[in-house]
Amino acid sequence: MAAWEPIWQDLCAYVCETALLQSTKELLEWDERTMMPQRAGEYRAEQISILSGMIHHRQTSSRLGDWLARLAETPLTNDPHSDAGATIRQVRRDHERLSKVPAPLVKELARASVLGQQAFVRARKQGQFALVEPNLQHIVALKQQEAEAIGYEDTPYDALLDEFEPHVKTSHLSQIFSEVAEALVPLIHTISEAQRQAPTQILRRHYPESQQRRFGRQVAELIGFDFSRGRLDVTDHPFCAGMGPDDCRITTRYDERFFSSAFFGILHEAGHGIYEQGLRTEQYGLPPGTFTSLGIHESQSRLWENFVGRSGAFWLHCYPIAQQFFRVALGDASVDDFLFAINEVRPSLIRVDADEATYNLHIVIRFEIEQALIRGDLRVGDLPSAWNAKYRQYLDITPLDDRQGVLQDIHWSAGLFGYFPTYSLGNLYAAQFIDQAKSELDDLDESFSRGEFGTLRQWLREQIHQHGQRYTPEELVEKVTGGPLSHRPLIDHLYRKLGPLYGFS
Amino acid sequence: MAAWEPIWQDLCAYVCETALLQSTKELLEWDERTMMPQRAGEYRAEQISILSGMIHHRQTSSRLGDWLARLAETPLTNDPHSDAGATIRQVRRDHERLSKVPAPLVKELARASVLGQQAFVRARKQGQFALVEPNLQHIVALKQQEAEAIGYEDTPYDALLDEFEPHVKTSHLSQIFSEVAEALVPLIHTISEAQRQAPTQILRRHYPESQQRRFGRQVAELIGFDFSRGRLDVTDHPFCAGMGPDDCRITTRYDERFFSSAFFGILHEAGHGIYEQGLRTEQYGLPPGTFTSLGIHESQSRLWENFVGRSGAFWLHCYPIAQQFFRVALGDASVDDFLFAINEVRPSLIRVDADEATYNLHIVIRFEIEQALIRGDLRVGDLPSAWNAKYRQYLDITPLDDRQGVLQDIHWSAGLFGYFPTYSLGNLYAAQFIDQAKSELDDLDESFSRGEFGTLRQWLREQIHQHGQRYTPEELVEKVTGGPLSHRPLIDHLYRKLGPLYGFS
Repeated sequence: MAAWEPIWQDLCAYVCETALLQSTKELLEWDERTMMPQRAGEYRAEQISILSGMIHHRQTSSRLGDWLARLAETPLTNDPHSDAGATIRQVRRDHERLSKVPAPLVKELARASVLGQQAFVRARKQGQFALVEPNLQHIVALKQQEAEAIGYEDTPYDALLDEFEPHVKTSHLSQIFSEVAEALVPLIHTISEAQRQAPTQILRRHYPESQQRRFGRQVAELIGFDFSRGRLDVTDHPFCAGMGPDDCRITTRYDERFFSSAFFGILHEAGHGIYEQGLRTEQYGLPPGTFTSLGIHESQSRLWENFVGRSGAFWLHCYPIAQQFFRVALGDASVDDFLFAINEVRPSLIRVDADEATYNLHIVIRFEIEQALIRGDLRVGDLPSAWNAKYRQYLDITPLDDRQGVLQDIHWSAGLFGYFPTYSLGNLYAAQFIDQAKSELDDLDESFSRGEFGTLRQWLREQIHQHGQRYTPEELVEKVTGGPLSHRPLIDHLYRKLGPLYGFS
Repeated sequence: MAAWEPIWQDLCAYVCETALLQSTKELLEWDERTMMPQRAGEYRAEQISILSGMIHHRQTSSRLGDWLARLAETPLTNDPHSDAGATIRQVRRDHERLSKVPAPLVKELARASVLGQQAFVRARKQGQFALVEPNLQHIVALKQQEAEAIGYEDTPYDALLDEFEPHVKTSHLSQIFSEVAEALVPLIHTISEAQRQAPTQILRRHYPESQQRRFGRQVAELIGFDFSRGRLDVTDHPFCAGMGPDDCRITTRYDERFFSSAFFGILHEAGHGIYEQGLRTEQYGLPPGTFTSLGIHESQSRLWENFVGRSGAFWLHCYPIAQQFFRVALGDASVDDFLFAINEVRPSLIRVDADEATYNLHIVIRFEIEQALIRGDLRVGDLPSAWNAKYRQYLDITPLDDRQGVLQDIHWSAGLFGYFPTYSLGNLYAAQFIDQAKSELDDLDESFSRGEFGTLRQWLREQIHQHGQRYTPEELVEKVTGGPLSHRPLIDHLYRKLGPLYGFS
């Protein structure tokens, strides 16, 4: 046995033990949002806090640092894409990143983000940005300190982005996002001038909640979410959380007067869930069994929600089923009208309600603003007016108040900077992946129209899920599609789908 | 500031931190039984196991031992019933007890009880005691070792009993339980000879689950279970679990063809929950904010289930409400017939289905058998025949197979010896407490008949709940009722209630 073998075994056991605590913390958080009695929140925060402290302590421990140093020059690291190579690389990456941030700053960031979220909720309720402004000022200052502590080559925002989308650079993203915006603005303008209007009143009829539940669950199962290894519950803000190799839980919210919100929400979260369920269970807690980035995670949700779930082929199979579930609402609606309705494009103020095309401009706006905040080019006090100016610039609409503007997303008040771009990255990656899948797999649309989604799911599993963190997002896109991140597949997809609906080419 | 003050603060903080982990473990276990996806069990066991290890490590740490030693001779311990005095006494008690058991034995007991439960489930399914026999042999041997490690004055069973009912001695319990049996056997015989029969077919009509849910929840609220600090869910084996000062969760199971199982189950668990919710929240995690024994806990559930929930005064208020919920089943049934039905006494084979009177004989049987096993006077291989002989002796019935006999309760296979007696202790304590409450509070029955339960609840809170572990069970009974544990109040209660129903005096 080589001298490094016992060290390697100790490292893996240690990381897996940390994952036991992380997944327990996930359960505490899932339960808080779905099940916990109303008055139990204060103690729950303490439970989460003690586990967070223990996890952070383990991830930054000198013991772990010693093991990593002693494994650095061993045969294990020869192939960076092997399970062992990826494990050592990623554990070291996290260890170094977390160790660079001084403990008092970590603590203050955690405290400020809890207080920030509480202030945000109050500010949003009263529609007064001023109520969260001091919190945001403090948080921006702390994030600037964090970026300096972590270090960067080009711009401090790089250091923050790297937490959510490893190795992606701000300069590269700026270029891609400006290409996206340049292509989308004229597309959206063309649509707003189009004669045809999507018959969206179909979606605003009465959809009984119990039927939405049953239909949503049935379709989630159909596309491959495994309920013997997962659950579907109700929350105000839908999410997907993994808390074990065979325990992935998704949530949605029901609106009896709007079909899309729960249904596409379920497809979206089930897409996240299928990624989690497609990771290798025997690597759970280790990097090869962990999703590689938020952008790649989002690509899986967007792929099932938009590229599959809003396609004609999908509804060839599912529309007759939907009509059985919603006889009154859909009995007299044609599948063509329904398809047009669920693919409506219309500039709007609220990101989470945005359509497949305009959604990306909501992200471009946030991406530009949060960079300016972190660089110090934009004062927090000027945030509402900057926000509104960007909405005029990109979407040609103006929020009537801050609730419809800067007070709609809690992310910044929770200390999340560099998170928003991953939403659009997900859209871009998804378009690239589905193009590649269609080029490799015969008759994918035809299989969708038969209600058969296993071929695509298996392809995604082999190409993406099973690798976990063995590849960075950039490497993965290159490996799967043979090319780098690009805006073209998404734009082409939108033209291809929206042209026939709105009558342009 | 006295020299011991910082030590005292450290000790309290340390114990409260341990409680954060214990309550997190409670959530893991609650979720496993109510929510967890079917295939997630293996990883859940690992999560629970790592937390158990951390908790045990903290409870037996030398740091804690040092603090306890340095606090032993301080003014804090002057009054053993003060918050501080009780905290130091109880933390030391747990620390010493747990430290006496060697770590390998703790680990082996945990492992054996997991395997034992799995074997029990298989054995029960196939009705073959032999499938769990080797596990039980191993567990009995381990429990004998544990008892020796902990130490005892009189009999090894004392050491095990002490875990669940602190300071209660086997000899004392044997005397009380034989008094119970001597009084119950003739009572049950008289009833079995009685002309009158309880009209139990009323309870076997159709009770729709959705209505049972609503009615049960409404009555749980009525008696004082606070749903802003708790939940009610569904499980096969109902239980009550606390996972925070404002987070107490109870469960039940519904049988549409039997009214009593869910309804009295909910009252029972709500009684446990009202005890948990009546503990002082600011003392959560510390002994004054922790229930004092399983027997006292059970007294609270039994008090609400049997002494309140099966009383005429309770149904004067609740029966008209029940008739509204269950128009078909109860529309033509008189409240007198209903009352007789829910108070039927009939010897039966299954403990959890037993009535208020015969229940205690099921416990006497288990108490005698488990003592004999631990003393080594009964071989595990002879357990089924010993079981059946005891059922003939005490209840004059014989199990047809082991599923209806020794394979009905999982406790022993889970390593729980000394647990069963606390069920009957709960009945005895409950009878003593309600007698005392009625002597101190005017017109308690009259208030029940108006649907008013706050007076009793408040009395229980002041007399019992708010003390937590400041008093041992024996001290508490003495303090509340002015006398020691006694079988008389329970027996008198049964004669008083059953005499008029069955027509004897």
